[in-house]
Amino acid sequence: MEADNADNADNALSAIARLVKPRSVAIIGASADAAKTAGRPVAYLKKHGFAGAIYPVNPKVSEIDGIRCYADIDALPEVPDVGIVLLGAQRAHLAVRELAALGTGAAIVLASGYSETGAEGARRQAELIEAAGAMRLLGPNTIGLVNLTDNIPLSASGALEMDHFPVGNIGVVSQSGGILGALLSRAAARGIGLSKLVSTSNEVDLDLADFIDYLADDEATRVIALYVESVRHPDRFRAAALKAARAGKPVVAFKIGRSEAGARAAVSHTGALAGADRMYDALFRQAGVIRAQTFADLLDMPAALATGRALRGNRVAILTSTGGAGTLVSDSLGLSGFETPAPDEATAQRLRALQQGDHAALDRNPIDVTLAGLQPDLLRGAIRALLDSPSYDAVAIIVGSSGLAMPDLMAGAIQECLPTSDKPVVAFVSPHAPQVASLLTARGVPAFSAPEGCTAALSAMLRAGQWREAPDVPAPAAARIAGELPHGALDEAEAKQLFARFGIPSVRERIVGNAQEASDAADALGARVVLKILSAEITHKSDVGGVAVNLTPQDIAARLSAMADEVRAHTGVVPQRFLVQEMVTGGVEMILGMHRDALGTAILLGMGGVTAELFKDTTMRMLPPAGGLSHTEALGMIQELKTWPLLDGFRGRPKADVAALANAIVAFSGMTAALGEQLVEAEINPVFVLPAAQGVRAADGVVVMAG
Amino acid sequence: MEADNADNADNALSAIARLVKPRSVAIIGASADAAKTAGRPVAYLKKHGFAGAIYPVNPKVSEIDGIRCYADIDALPEVPDVGIVLLGAQRAHLAVRELAALGTGAAIVLASGYSETGAEGARRQAELIEAAGAMRLLGPNTIGLVNLTDNIPLSASGALEMDHFPVGNIGVVSQSGGILGALLSRAAARGIGLSKLVSTSNEVDLDLADFIDYLADDEATRVIALYVESVRHPDRFRAAALKAARAGKPVVAFKIGRSEAGARAAVSHTGALAGADRMYDALFRQAGVIRAQTFADLLDMPAALATGRALRGNRVAILTSTGGAGTLVSDSLGLSGFETPAPDEATAQRLRALQQGDHAALDRNPIDVTLAGLQPDLLRGAIRALLDSPSYDAVAIIVGSSGLAMPDLMAGAIQECLPTSDKPVVAFVSPHAPQVASLLTARGVPAFSAPEGCTAALSAMLRAGQWREAPDVPAPAAARIAGELPHGALDEAEAKQLFARFGIPSVRERIVGNAQEASDAADALGARVVLKILSAEITHKSDVGGVAVNLTPQDIAARLSAMADEVRAHTGVVPQRFLVQEMVTGGVEMILGMHRDALGTAILLGMGGVTAELFKDTTMRMLPPAGGLSHTEALGMIQELKTWPLLDGFRGRPKADVAALANAIVAFSGMTAALGEQLVEAEINPVFVLPAAQGVRAADGVVVMAG
Repeated sequence: MEADNADNADNALSAIARLVKPRSVAIIGASADAAKTAGRPVAYLKKHGFAGAIYPVNPKVSEIDGIRCYADIDALPEVPDVGIVLLGAQRAHLAVRELAALGTGAAIVLASGYSETGAEGARRQAELIEAAGAMRLLGPNTIGLVNLTDNIPLSASGALEMDHFPVGNIGVVSQSGGILGALLSRAAARGIGLSKLVSTSNEVDLDLADFIDYLADDEATRVIALYVESVRHPDRFRAAALKAARAGKPVVAFKIGRSEAGARAAVSHTGALAGADRMYDALFRQAGVIRAQTFADLLDMPAALATGRALRGNRVAILTSTGGAGTLVSDSLGLSGFETPAPDEATAQRLRALQQGDHAALDRNPIDVTLAGLQPDLLRGAIRALLDSPSYDAVAIIVGSSGLAMPDLMAGAIQECLPTSDKPVVAFVSPHAPQVASLLTARGVPAFSAPEGCTAALSAMLRAGQWREAPDVPAPAAARIAGELPHGALDEAEAKQLFARFGIPSVRERIVGNAQEASDAADALGARVVLKILSAEITHKSDVGGVAVNLTPQDIAARLSAMADEVRAHTGVVPQRFLVQEMVTGGVEMILGMHRDALGTAILLGMGGVTAELFKDTTMRMLPPAGGLSHTEALGMIQELKTWPLLDGFRGRPKADVAALANAIVAFSGMTAALGEQLVEAEINPVFVLPAAQGVRAADGVVVMAG
Repeated sequence: MEADNADNADNALSAIARLVKPRSVAIIGASADAAKTAGRPVAYLKKHGFAGAIYPVNPKVSEIDGIRCYADIDALPEVPDVGIVLLGAQRAHLAVRELAALGTGAAIVLASGYSETGAEGARRQAELIEAAGAMRLLGPNTIGLVNLTDNIPLSASGALEMDHFPVGNIGVVSQSGGILGALLSRAAARGIGLSKLVSTSNEVDLDLADFIDYLADDEATRVIALYVESVRHPDRFRAAALKAARAGKPVVAFKIGRSEAGARAAVSHTGALAGADRMYDALFRQAGVIRAQTFADLLDMPAALATGRALRGNRVAILTSTGGAGTLVSDSLGLSGFETPAPDEATAQRLRALQQGDHAALDRNPIDVTLAGLQPDLLRGAIRALLDSPSYDAVAIIVGSSGLAMPDLMAGAIQECLPTSDKPVVAFVSPHAPQVASLLTARGVPAFSAPEGCTAALSAMLRAGQWREAPDVPAPAAARIAGELPHGALDEAEAKQLFARFGIPSVRERIVGNAQEASDAADALGARVVLKILSAEITHKSDVGGVAVNLTPQDIAARLSAMADEVRAHTGVVPQRFLVQEMVTGGVEMILGMHRDALGTAILLGMGGVTAELFKDTTMRMLPPAGGLSHTEALGMIQELKTWPLLDGFRGRPKADVAALANAIVAFSGMTAALGEQLVEAEINPVFVLPAAQGVRAADGVVVMAG
C-alpha cells in the first residue's frame, strides 16, 4: 500500500510536471478565428512565445496562423504532453479517450455541463473519467492552467487577455475558474507576481492537494494561495499543506461556505457545536494553512509573504508624512494585537538628526516626518533608523499625497533600504494611487490601499513565523480494543466503562434496580448523591425527569419511586435500572466530544454551563490520520477557551487540574482514533475538572457504536 | 438660555452658509507662483470657474494671473465673505485679527504648529482664538473646504489637483485633512459623487457638529460621511446628527481610537467595562449614526445610501454570469444575516422564459445567467424579473470578465431597470475593472470590488431604514432630590437608600453592631442570610473577608466575630457595623452602573457572574441631554445581551421579571440624570432579577457623591 501510494504520488508529480511545463500541446477543436473562444489557446501560446510544439486539431482547417493543423488526434506527429480539449460536454470524452490511448500526459477539459448541472451531467462526468483511464485529467469545467514562470498559458479564458503576465513567486490554485481570472487581473494591477495559476474546478482527477504538493516542490513558488469551495480529500490536502509548510512555503486559503448553517441534529451536543466551517478552521490550522478572512486577504497576505521576510514580533514602527493616515494604520494594527511603541531614545536621536524644525513629531508613533514625502534622503535615513532599531519588528510606511509627486524616486528610496535588514517593510497608500502601490509592491514593498490590508499582511507574516507542526500521537495500543467491543447505543454506565478502558476516570457509581439497593448505594457513596435512570434509549434524561441531584441517603428511596412515575408519565416506559453516583462538587464542568463529517473526525472541548454555552465557547482539533492528539495540542485547546481563566485561578478560584484534563483529551482522542469507524458518536458531558492534583471525573456520557 | 442657543445656532448657520458659498474670497499671503502651495488657492478658484470676487493679498505683487492683488487687508475693496489665511502659525493671528475687524464672515487658517505640537502651539492657538473674536474660524491645521456643488475650492491642498470634482450628494466632514484628501481622490476614482468636503481639524471654533447641522439643511446633500478622531461637543454632535436623521439623511461615521486601552482604574466595575470606544458606539447608535467598521466602509456605505433607495428586508437576489463570484457575495451576505433564497416559482418561470439551454441555473440563488454578460436584453429581463419578485428586497449583480467587453452597454442595461422599482441594486465587480465599477456607480448602481463592500453597503441601507428615534424621558420629579442629599462615598446601606428614593427596591436588611443584634436580625430575615461589613471606605468587601453568605441564624454570631478578626487582619481596622441581609435565591445576577467621561454619561447593564464577565457581556446607552432612558430603550438593552436567554426561559429556567429590570434601568438612569454632576459614581452589583412578577432586588451597591 505504502509503496503503491508513493508510486502514485511520483506518477502524479511527473504527470503534473509534464502538464505544467509541457514540451508539446495539442488543442482539440482549435478554431482559426482568434476572436472565438476556441481560437484563443493557440493565439495565447503564440503571443506569449511558447517554445514547444503547438498541434491544433481541426478537420476543417489546414493551418491556424501559420501553424499546421491536424485533422484528428491520430494524425498528430508525436505524443503530446498536454491535450487541451475544447469540445462540448457531449463530445469531449471521445477526444479524451483518443488522447489517453496515445499516451498523452494529461488532458484539460474546459467544457461545462458535468456534475455541476445535475444527473445527466454526472453521467457525462463518469463517462469522461472512464475515457481518461490512466491519463491525468484537469477539469472539467475548468479555465485551465497558466505557468507564468515559463510563460505558458493553457487556457481559452478571456481573463488571460493580457500582453504580459505578472510573474512572481505566488502559486494560486482555485476551485473556481472565474475567481482565478479575477485574482489574475487583480494581481496584475497591483504589481503582485504569480508563478502558476490553476483552476481545478470539478476535480474528477487532479485536485487542490495535487497542485499544493507540486508547488511545494516548485522552485519558482514561495507562497501558495488557495480559493477553496470544498476539500474533497482531506488527508491528502493535509499532507500536501504540511509538506509546503515544512518547505517554508506558507499556504493561504480563502474558504467560502462560512455562512452555511452547519449545525445538524445529533444525539450529542458536540454535533451542534461543531459547524462545518469550524471543522475547516481546525483542519487549516493543524495543516499550517493561514486562513484569509476576507477576499482581499487572499492577495494581501501572499503579497506580503512573497517577500520572504520574517516578522519576529508584534512591534511596528509607522513612518508617515501625512497626518491622519498613520493613525488609521496604527488603529487597525492595535485592533489585531500589534503594538506601536514610541521610538527608543537612540532611535529618536537618529531621527532628530535627520531634520530640523518643529514639524516633525518624533517622540511618538506614528513617526511623523512631514517632509519625507518630498525628500528621498530623509525618507531613506528614517527607514534605516527604524529598521536598525531594536524596538521594532517591522516598518509600515504611509504614502500620502506628497509622495505621489515623484513615485519612482520615493519607491526607489524605500527599496534601497530593504537590503539593510530582513525585517518586513509594508506600505499604506492613502490617496487613490494604484500606480504607486503597484510600483512599491513590484519592488518588494507590499503596498495596500486599506489599512486593514496592512494588518492582515503583517498578521499573516507573524502566523507564518510562529507555526510549529503538532506531532501525531499513535493511537493507544491495540490491546485496549482487543477485547469484545460493545455495539449500538450504549447506556451511561457502559459508555463510562468504555472511557475507563482508555484511561478516563468516572465518578464512582452503582447500578441499582430498586429503592433498597439505591439506599445502600447512597450510604456507600457519600453524604450527597445523584440518582439517574439508566437507559440506552433515553439520552436526554433530564427532559423526562430522569435526573435528581443533591440527594441524601435518607431521601433516595422516595425520590426513586417518584422518578419512576415521572419517567413513565413522559415516556410510557417504567424504568427498570437506575444509577446512583457520588456527587462531585467544586469542579469545573466541561464537555469533551467527537464529531465526524466529510472532512474527517474532530475532537471538541467546550466549557460547560449555560452561560458558556450561549457564547459557544468551544475549540476543536481534527484527528490526525493515524493517531490521537498530543498532550501539547490538548493543552493548547484548553488555553484557547475564552473561559480558560475559570480553570486558571480566576478571581481567587482554585486552579483546576489542567494536566489531568489534557490527559483526558489525549485519551479521548486516542480512543476515537483507535475505534475508528466503529465509533459513531461519543461525548462526555459533563466532565468535572477538580482542583489541581485531584484529577477529572466523567459524570455522564453518550456513546453510539456501529452495528 | 434656550433663546440664546437658538440665536447662536442661526448665527453659526448663516456664517457657515457664507463660508461654504461665498460671494468673495480674500487669500492672505497668496503667491503668484502657482507651483507653490500659496499659489494654489487662487489657481484652484480660477480653474473651477469661481464666479465671485477673488482678492489675493500680497504686498510684493500687484497681480496674480490677471487678478488684482492687494497690499494688505485694509486695502480690500469690500468685506470678503471668507478669508483664506496662508501665513504661518507665527503670523496667522495678525491676519485673522484684521479680517475680524473688517467684518469678514469666516477665516480659514491652514497653518499647522498649534495645539497639535505642544505647549508653544497651544499658546498660539489661544492667541488665534482671541484674534478671531466674533468671526468664525475653520481650522487651524486644516486643508480647508470644497463646495463641489457650486465648484468652489477653498484650499491649498495638492490633493485637490483635479480638473473636475466628482459632484454628487455625499457631504464629507473630516477631522483629518490628509484623510479628506484621500477620500476625495478615492471617491473621484470610483464614480462616487460628493457635495461638500470639510476638514475641521483643530476645531478651535467650527466643528463636526456645525457642519453636520449645515449639511442636514443643505439641499445638495443626501448622505453625510464623517471621519472622527474625537467628538469635542457630544451634545451638539448628538443634536446635529439627530436633525440629519430626522431629515432622512443618513450619517455614516468612521471613528479611530478603537484599539485604545479604554479601561481605567475605578471604584466600580462599570468604569472598567465601559471603554471609551464603547461610549462612542452608544453615542452613534442613539444619534442614528451608522458606524463604518472599516475605512472602506466610509465610502462604500455612503455610496449605497446616496441612491436614496430603501432596503425593506434582508432577502437579496444575486444575479451572476460567472461562477465563483456569486457564491463569494452570497457567503459574505450570509455572514451578516442576509438571506439569499431561491427564486419563487413565478420568478423562476419568467427567468426560464428568457433563455434556452442547460447553462442557466435558475432554481437557485446566485441565479446564474451565463450569457447575460454579453446580452443586454437578457440582463435587463432578468433584473426586471428579480426587482418585481416579492421574494426579494434587493438585487446584487455580479460583473465578471464577460461583462467587461462592452461596459457601456452593460451599465446602460442595468441603469434602464432602475426606474421600474425602488429596491436597491448593487454590483460586485469580480475582475480588476475600476472603470466599469466607476461607470456603474456614477449611473446609480453602487459597485464594489470587495464582496464585503456589497454587504456593508446593504447593511447600511437596512440600518438607515430601521432607525427610530428613542424618546428622551424627563428625569424624575425634583421632589426626589429635594431633601438633603448625602456627600462623598456612601456605605452600602446609604447607597441602597438612595436607590430606593428613586424607586429601586433592595434586599431586606438590618444594620447591626454586635453578635446579638445580628442573631435577632437573622431570625427576622429568613432561614438563610448574608453578613457583610458596612463601611464607606472598604468597597471591595470580599477581598478583605468581609462577606459571608448562606448563614443560618444559629451560625451568625460566631461568623460575625470571625469576620471582625479577618477584616482587622487585612485592613488593620476593627469593623464596627455590619449588614444582615435576606439571602436571595433563584434570581439572575446582573450589574447596573453609570460611567462618565468626556463624551457624556453612560448607563451600563451587564450580566453578572464570572463567565459572563469573561465575555464582557454588557451593553450601554448614553444618557440623553435632559432626562433618563425610556422603558423601550431599557428593554432594548436587556435584549441585546448575549445572555438574554438566561432571562427568557432558556433551557426550562423560569422567565425572569424583565419588566421590573427595565423599570430599574429607567429609575437608575433617571437618578443619574437628576443628580447630574453631584453623582460621581454609582453601581448596583449585583441586582437580582427574580422570576416573573417578583421584581428585582439591589443586593449591593456603590455610590460616590460629590463633595
